[in-house]
Amino acid sequence: MAKTLTKEKDLMGWLSQILIDAGIYDYRYPIKGCGIWLPYGFKIRENMLKIIRKHLDEKGHQEVLFPLLIPEYNLKKEAEHIAGFMSEVYWVTKGGDEELKVKHALRPTSETAIYPMYALWVRSHKDLPIKYYQVVNIFRYETKTTRPIIRVREVLTFKEAHTVHATKEEAEKQFKEAVEIYSKIFDELALPHLVLRRPDWDKFAGAVYTVAHDTIMPNGRRLQIGTVHYLGQNFSKAFDIKYLKPNGAHEYVYQLCYGISGRPVAAIVAIHSDERGLILPPNVAPIKAVIIPIYYKKEKEIVIKYCEKIKRTLEKNGITVETDYREEETPGSKFYYWEMKGVPIRIEIGIKEVKEKKATVQRRDTLTRVEVSWEELVSYIKKTLHNIQGNLKKRADEWMKSMIKETDSLEIARKEINNGYVIKTPWCGREECGKTIEEITDARVYGYKYGQEEAKGKCPICNQEASKIIYIGKTY
Amino acid sequence: MAKTLTKEKDLMGWLSQILIDAGIYDYRYPIKGCGIWLPYGFKIRENMLKIIRKHLDEKGHQEVLFPLLIPEYNLKKEAEHIAGFMSEVYWVTKGGDEELKVKHALRPTSETAIYPMYALWVRSHKDLPIKYYQVVNIFRYETKTTRPIIRVREVLTFKEAHTVHATKEEAEKQFKEAVEIYSKIFDELALPHLVLRRPDWDKFAGAVYTVAHDTIMPNGRRLQIGTVHYLGQNFSKAFDIKYLKPNGAHEYVYQLCYGISGRPVAAIVAIHSDERGLILPPNVAPIKAVIIPIYYKKEKEIVIKYCEKIKRTLEKNGITVETDYREEETPGSKFYYWEMKGVPIRIEIGIKEVKEKKATVQRRDTLTRVEVSWEELVSYIKKTLHNIQGNLKKRADEWMKSMIKETDSLEIARKEINNGYVIKTPWCGREECGKTIEEITDARVYGYKYGQEEAKGKCPICNQEASKIIYIGKTY
Repeated sequence: MAKTLTKEKDLMGWLSQILIDAGIYDYRYPIKGCGIWLPYGFKIRENMLKIIRKHLDEKGHQEVLFPLLIPEYNLKKEAEHIAGFMSEVYWVTKGGDEELKVKHALRPTSETAIYPMYALWVRSHKDLPIKYYQVVNIFRYETKTTRPIIRVREVLTFKEAHTVHATKEEAEKQFKEAVEIYSKIFDELALPHLVLRRPDWDKFAGAVYTVAHDTIMPNGRRLQIGTVHYLGQNFSKAFDIKYLKPNGAHEYVYQLCYGISGRPVAAIVAIHSDERGLILPPNVAPIKAVIIPIYYKKEKEIVIKYCEKIKRTLEKNGITVETDYREEETPGSKFYYWEMKGVPIRIEIGIKEVKEKKATVQRRDTLTRVEVSWEELVSYIKKTLHNIQGNLKKRADEWMKSMIKETDSLEIARKEINNGYVIKTPWCGREECGKTIEEITDARVYGYKYGQEEAKGKCPICNQEASKIIYIGKTY
Repeated sequence: MAKTLTKEKDLMGWLSQILIDAGIYDYRYPIKGCGIWLPYGFKIRENMLKIIRKHLDEKGHQEVLFPLLIPEYNLKKEAEHIAGFMSEVYWVTKGGDEELKVKHALRPTSETAIYPMYALWVRSHKDLPIKYYQVVNIFRYETKTTRPIIRVREVLTFKEAHTVHATKEEAEKQFKEAVEIYSKIFDELALPHLVLRRPDWDKFAGAVYTVAHDTIMPNGRRLQIGTVHYLGQNFSKAFDIKYLKPNGAHEYVYQLCYGISGRPVAAIVAIHSDERGLILPPNVAPIKAVIIPIYYKKEKEIVIKYCEKIKRTLEKNGITVETDYREEETPGSKFYYWEMKGVPIRIEIGIKEVKEKKATVQRRDTLTRVEVSWEELVSYIKKTLHNIQGNLKKRADEWMKSMIKETDSLEIARKEINNGYVIKTPWCGREECGKTIEEITDARVYGYKYGQEEAKGKCPICNQEASKIIYIGKTY
C-alpha cells in the first residue's frame, strides 16, 4: 500500500488503493465506473450475501432471476419512475449489424422488468403475497465522478426484493419487517446505521415514500447502504397487476421494493480499518485466523508440524484457517501482509510455543497478544472471534454517535458539516424550509428517524414548531 | 400441464410448458429469448452450481466477478474471436441522451473483458498459474428460433473459467484436468455425455482446439453442455499478457477457457422426465421427499402429528422435506402435483401408518411403493435417494448408448439420423471429407472421442484409411 495515502487525508484515494492491495476490488477496468471483484473480495461479498439471504429466507422470501434487458415501452410505463431514471439509462440499440426495433434498457433497477410478469402471475388473492428477490448487476450512466464500489456505472452486486400484497395493511406490515431485516443485516455486518425516512423530494422515483439505512464514512459523508420503498399502487396501476377479490371485484395490488448493493463492503473497509490496513469483522472475513511459523532452520520441521496440528484442529471446529509457510518472506513481512488483509486473528508459533504446548495469539482489532495453552486454544479462538465481532460493532457505533452533533443554528451546522460532522436540527416538515436548510448549510437533508418521534424546538427557517428532527450533512 | 403436449411429439413445446408448470423457468418475458428462473428452478440451478463450484474449488479455482460491458476496441483485438461473434453481439450505444464515444458490447463471453486485466496482473512466473472463474449472464443476438434455457439471447447462468499458465505443458495438463472436472460434474448431475473433440471448423472462435461435453436429448439432437478450449498464445499475444522468465526474457502465457451454462438443467428435465412430469436426480432436487397425509376428518390431528414427527426426524438427518397439508386438495391431486414437480420420494401417511408405526414410501423414478417401519425410515430414505440418483444415471447412460448407431453407409446414416439417432462413422480426418459428410447426411459432425483412439474402417467419402471415428447427427 502506498504509504502516502491515508484514510484521513484522502479517503477515496486510500480506498481505491487498499481495495487492490488487499485483493478485494480492482477499479482499473478500461470502462469508467466498472471494476472487478477479486477472489478475496468475492468471498467477503459472498459472506455478506449469505447473511442477507439468511434473513430474507427466514422471513419467507424466495430467490429468483430476471432478465437484464427491459423494453423501452415497459421502462416508460410508470411516469415518475422513468422521469427519475431517464438521464442515467444505458441503451442497447443494436444487435449484430441490425438496429433494434425497440430499444432495450440495461436495468437501472428491476421494477419494470419484474412487474409485467407479476401482472401475468397474479390472478387471485391465493397468489399473494409474493416475496421474491434477486441478486443481479444493475447499471447507471453516471456522469459525475465515480468511486470504487460506492458510485459505479455497473453495480455488480444488487440484492433487490419485490413484494406484492393484497391490502395496504399487509404491505405496511411487510414494510416494517423489511426495515427490521435490514437493521439485523447491518448489525451482523458490524455497520453502524441510522434508519431514516427520506424527505419527499429525495424518495425513490415512483415510490410513495422511502426509508433508508445510512452509515457515516470516516470523512463524515453519508453512505446510503439500504433502502426500503413503499410503492402503494403506483406500479400496479401502471402495469395492471390486480387480483379478483372474493366479492368478484378487482383490486390493484400493493407493492414494496427494497435493495442493498455492494456498498456495505466498502463501508466495512472504510470504517473498521486502521493505519495497518483492513480489520474485517469475523462474520465476513474469508479467513478467520492465520498461522505464522517462526523458526531457525533446524526447528523448521517440528514447528511446521505443530502449525499443521493447530490448523487441523481449528478446521475441525469449523474455523477457516490459513497458514503462511513462504520461505522467501520474513515473519515480520507476513505479519504486515495479513494485518493489511484484515484477518481477525494471528497465531504465531515458534519453538517456545511448541515446547510449552501453547500458541501466541494476536487480535487484529486491539493488537493485543496473549499466550494460550493448547487445551484452551479452540475455545479461546471461538470466543475471541465473537468478541472481535462485538467490539468492532460497539466501537463503530460509538464512533458514529460522536460524529453527530445537535444544533438549531444553521451557521454552526454549516461550519460543523464542513468539519466533517453530521448535524441534527429541528424542522417544521415543509419542503420549502427543508430545501432552504440544504442551501444555507450547503448540505443534504438525510431525513428523520423512522418509527421514532424526537421532535422538539423550532424550525430554523420559519421559526414554527418543529415536527421532525432532521439529519443533514454531506453525502456520496 | 397441457395433456396434449408430450415430449415424444413436440419436445420443445412440452419443455416450455413443463418448465412453467413445475415452477422452473418462465419464458414469456416480453423480449424474445429471455426468461425468468422461478423459485423452484432457481434452487435446482443453485444445486447445480454448488456441484460445479465444489469441483472447481477443490482443484484450486477461485471465483471472481468481472464487468459486463466490453469496449469495442477490446472485443476486436483477437481477429478470429471477433469474426466468430460479430454477428451476434448486442451493442450499447447510448447513455441517457448521449451517444457513447466508444460502443460497449454486452459480453458474449468474457475473454476480452478479462484478459486486459490479466495483462495488468501477470508480471512474473510467481503470478502463475491463475485459475479464476465467474458465474454471470452473457448475451447473444440470436436471430434463429430461440428455445427456453437451451437457445436464448440472455444466458442467465454462465460459469466460465479462464486459466493462465507459464508453459504449454502446464496448460495442457490443466486442459485434461478441466475435462475430468466436467465429466465428474455431469456424472453428479446424472447426465449421460460424450466427450468429443470438435472438428476444426467447429471450434471456439479464437481457440486452437475445443473439446465438448455433449448430451443427447430425447429427440436425438445433440445438446452441448460444456466446452473446454485450448487458447494457446492466441489471446496472450493479442492482449500482451506476458511474464518475465528467470533468464530475463519475456514469454507470452498459455491460456484455457471452459464453460458451462444453464443448459444442464434443461437436459435433466428433458432426459429424466416421464409422462407424469419431472424426475429430479436427488443431487439437484430442491425437495428430497414430500409427506402427504391421508385421513378422515376425525383422524386429522393424529395423522398430522405423525407427519410432523417424520418431518422433524428427516430434517434432523439433513434431508429437505416438504409437507402438503392443503385442505382444498385431495390426496390424489397432491400426488399428481408433486410427481409433476419431480420430488424423488413421496411419503404417504394414513391412520394405518400411524397405528402400525410405519410409512408408505414411493420412489418417483420406478413408482414402486413399499411400507417402511419407523425404525428403518431414515436409513431407508437415505439409501433410496442414493439409489434413485444411481438408477437415473444408469438408465440414462443405457438409453444414450441405445441412441447411437454405427454405420459406414452415409445413406443409412442419413435415414437413421432422421429417425432420431446419432451415428458413428469412420473419417479420414480431412476437413473437405467431413463437410461432405455433413452435406450428404444433412447433419453435423459432432467430433471424435477425446483421449480415446477407436479408429477403424475407411472414410466413406475418399475411401482412405480412417484416422477417427466421428459422431454425427442433429444439434441444438
